Amino acid sequence: MRAEILATGNEILGGALTDTNSAYIAGKLAEVGAEVVRHTCVGDELVELETALREIAGRAEIALVTGGLGPTIDDLTAEAAARAAGVTMHLDPEALRSVEAYFRILQRPVSASNRKQARLPQTAVCLPNPVGTAPGFAMRCGRCWFFFMPGVPHEMRRMLEDQVLPRIAAMQGDRQESYRSKTLTTFGLPESQVDDQLRGFAAEFPGVRLGLRAKFPEIQIKLYARGSQGPELETMLTAAVAWIRIRLGDKIISSQGASMEAVVAGLLMERQATIALAESCTGGLIAHRLTNIAGSSAYFLHAAIVYSNEAKQRILGVTPETLTRCGAVHEDTAKEMAAGARRLAGADYGLSTSGIAGPSGGTDAKPVGTVCIGVAGPDGVSARRYQFPFRERGMNKSLFAAAALNLLRRQLLSAPGLEGAKEPPIHREKLS
Amino acid sequence: MRAEILATGNEILGGALTDTNSAYIAGKLAEVGAEVVRHTCVGDELVELETALREIAGRAEIALVTGGLGPTIDDLTAEAAARAAGVTMHLDPEALRSVEAYFRILQRPVSASNRKQARLPQTAVCLPNPVGTAPGFAMRCGRCWFFFMPGVPHEMRRMLEDQVLPRIAAMQGDRQESYRSKTLTTFGLPESQVDDQLRGFAAEFPGVRLGLRAKFPEIQIKLYARGSQGPELETMLTAAVAWIRIRLGDKIISSQGASMEAVVAGLLMERQATIALAESCTGGLIAHRLTNIAGSSAYFLHAAIVYSNEAKQRILGVTPETLTRCGAVHEDTAKEMAAGARRLAGADYGLSTSGIAGPSGGTDAKPVGTVCIGVAGPDGVSARRYQFPFRERGMNKSLFAAAALNLLRRQLLSAPGLEGAKEPPIHREKLS
Repeated sequence: MRAEILATGNEILGGALTDTNSAYIAGKLAEVGAEVVRHTCVGDELVELETALREIAGRAEIALVTGGLGPTIDDLTAEAAARAAGVTMHLDPEALRSVEAYFRILQRPVSASNRKQARLPQTAVCLPNPVGTAPGFAMRCGRCWFFFMPGVPHEMRRMLEDQVLPRIAAMQGDRQESYRSKTLTTFGLPESQVDDQLRGFAAEFPGVRLGLRAKFPEIQIKLYARGSQGPELETMLTAAVAWIRIRLGDKIISSQGASMEAVVAGLLMERQATIALAESCTGGLIAHRLTNIAGSSAYFLHAAIVYSNEAKQRILGVTPETLTRCGAVHEDTAKEMAAGARRLAGADYGLSTSGIAGPSGGTDAKPVGTVCIGVAGPDGVSARRYQFPFRERGMNKSLFAAAALNLLRRQLLSAPGLEGAKEPPIHREKLS
Repeated sequence: MRAEILATGNEILGGALTDTNSAYIAGKLAEVGAEVVRHTCVGDELVELETALREIAGRAEIALVTGGLGPTIDDLTAEAAARAAGVTMHLDPEALRSVEAYFRILQRPVSASNRKQARLPQTAVCLPNPVGTAPGFAMRCGRCWFFFMPGVPHEMRRMLEDQVLPRIAAMQGDRQESYRSKTLTTFGLPESQVDDQLRGFAAEFPGVRLGLRAKFPEIQIKLYARGSQGPELETMLTAAVAWIRIRLGDKIISSQGASMEAVVAGLLMERQATIALAESCTGGLIAHRLTNIAGSSAYFLHAAIVYSNEAKQRILGVTPETLTRCGAVHEDTAKEMAAGARRLAGADYGLSTSGIAGPSGGTDAKPVGTVCIGVAGPDGVSARRYQFPFRERGMNKSLFAAAALNLLRRQLLSAPGLEGAKEPPIHREKLS
């Protein structure tokens, strides 16, 4: 069933407001098996609206429209719909009841401009709005069923869920296809290399659509399958995941689309291990990410965000000798920071970062993008240096944080329990 | 000049990704005086892409397209553009130079799939990409000039700013109107209340367009004016800002659209003051925000992210008596945390948060959304309690962090230097 989405309003058209409704609706339509082929946005202008509606009526079987149902002079969607369908407007009794019911909740009288919201095209079926002033409506135009909803996100979501999606599911009837999707998360390869590694996928799995989505610095691999048989789709996706796993190996950090911090949090909980951080260049980002996970107090003990050398010494016990000999950005400093954080908090693991996020502060030997990461665990301390090619502070903070969490992840994976973990070799590597 | 915007990609079409590029581009096109009449989004499907391009070519004078320039098999935009214009593809020498130059920065060889990115329609003019692998291009199709840019936001923004907008401005020539805009940042009022306070603006300033944009928990007020006389627009906007200032007072934290952390960073630098943090419920977010500002090492000394009561005692010197008597979420605990952070780092100011971000952990007396914030300064320590209505962890972390920075901001504003600052009254308040 070919579906289109139309967002209306000058705020969205002019860029003052980002349209989040269309993405939300698209996700929901996919769940009921409708195939979204286009989104459009036009402003509060009668001719543009009518033209867009006519065009959609000629292409799609269903269309979901948001915005322009309010009480103001700018709200022209119902009028444009009537024109596109060649019908007149009238005061819809059910729409009027919807408006009056909402104003009773507000304990306010219904104004003339709010009564205007009950004026719908003659052939429209009212979709009452229990959480706002603007009733929606459904109507046929050409061969397409249109569903008009308010632009206010929470009003739209309620109407979509309660009234629009059930109607669309019923319209699909036997045509309703099953839909399955899977998301893998990878870290350590840029998008183009992930893509290169997966060359041949389409030939191998013609029934599965593959998409890459960069959530810098992680890349998500999304697999979508659609068909009449749910269990078959499941089998197909499982085989597809196995195929990808052979090619990407330990670059895959989650087969449920989890973020790096969620993966590390899961491992810490599984191991019943606690963590303390010593962050310099990442400035609290690792702590922020880990504490975004609900329940993080089970494993997260303390983070010391230590920018200055003095704080590194005073709080974490980094020795002045190491700082003088190696500087702040060095494996030895990172090791002392990780060990200091672990000791200070009495944690099972300590994780540290010291590097140059930019835009300034780089040298020839340690350019912007250099980071040293230390991991202190029950079996000792190790450190690594990475040199990333980016010059942008925000990107480097994100990448440094993910690289640090990834080192901890690998250490947690190699530890059978808290005892007997083998310390990975300490060496410099270049990760691109 | 009628302009349209086309976003491409299955992720956006299917709702996996919200399209933020189109709103950004629309805002920038308004600045150069182009009139955006429509946004469209289609997926990675050759026929849909070609159809959309042909339709736009028949309607618009300029069109800005994002996405589909990557190295993968899904990236079909250049091919679709060639078909829509009826020209063939070729390896564009300048595009190849752009790709090779970027890979030199990355110190990686150019792969076959990356070389594909240099294949452009015969009549295209390459727009080199200094910050990514995908070159863009400009080409005429019908009566419309198309500008094709990468979908990765930071790459798109750079190309738009450096190469596309100047070309469009030149095309406009004498038709170009002057355009001025101003952005104010507010904190402490929800969007609907900001809107209520500004009722009557349109009647007072018919020549100024006003838009609100939520950057939770901050609300930006955007003012746009367009006309032939630049200086007149400037005068009009200055009057509009003064009118808004009367209504919103100290809810306005910046008249340059700066973020809360940038405002606080600016004040700390101006006062030559240093800061230390003790974050519990915000989990490093305040540190992360402050260290996002380049040059933060000038004022940022240390943050202790202390989740456990033990860490609060051991690292910050919070007394067991206070924790037993008041609990972790209390003004007295927040004060001891702020004072402890300040003392530990030897900073001018200490700022602390302790609260319940949710989803669990709330009680009747201290529901989810409760936070206590402490500020320690040269003249003593104060604390406040807020109770926010949200239940969502991420929203609460953001709101708590902004509320804490706002308290520090007010203290810094009231301090003439580091001496003689008057301590604000300690009381509970409810901020909605």
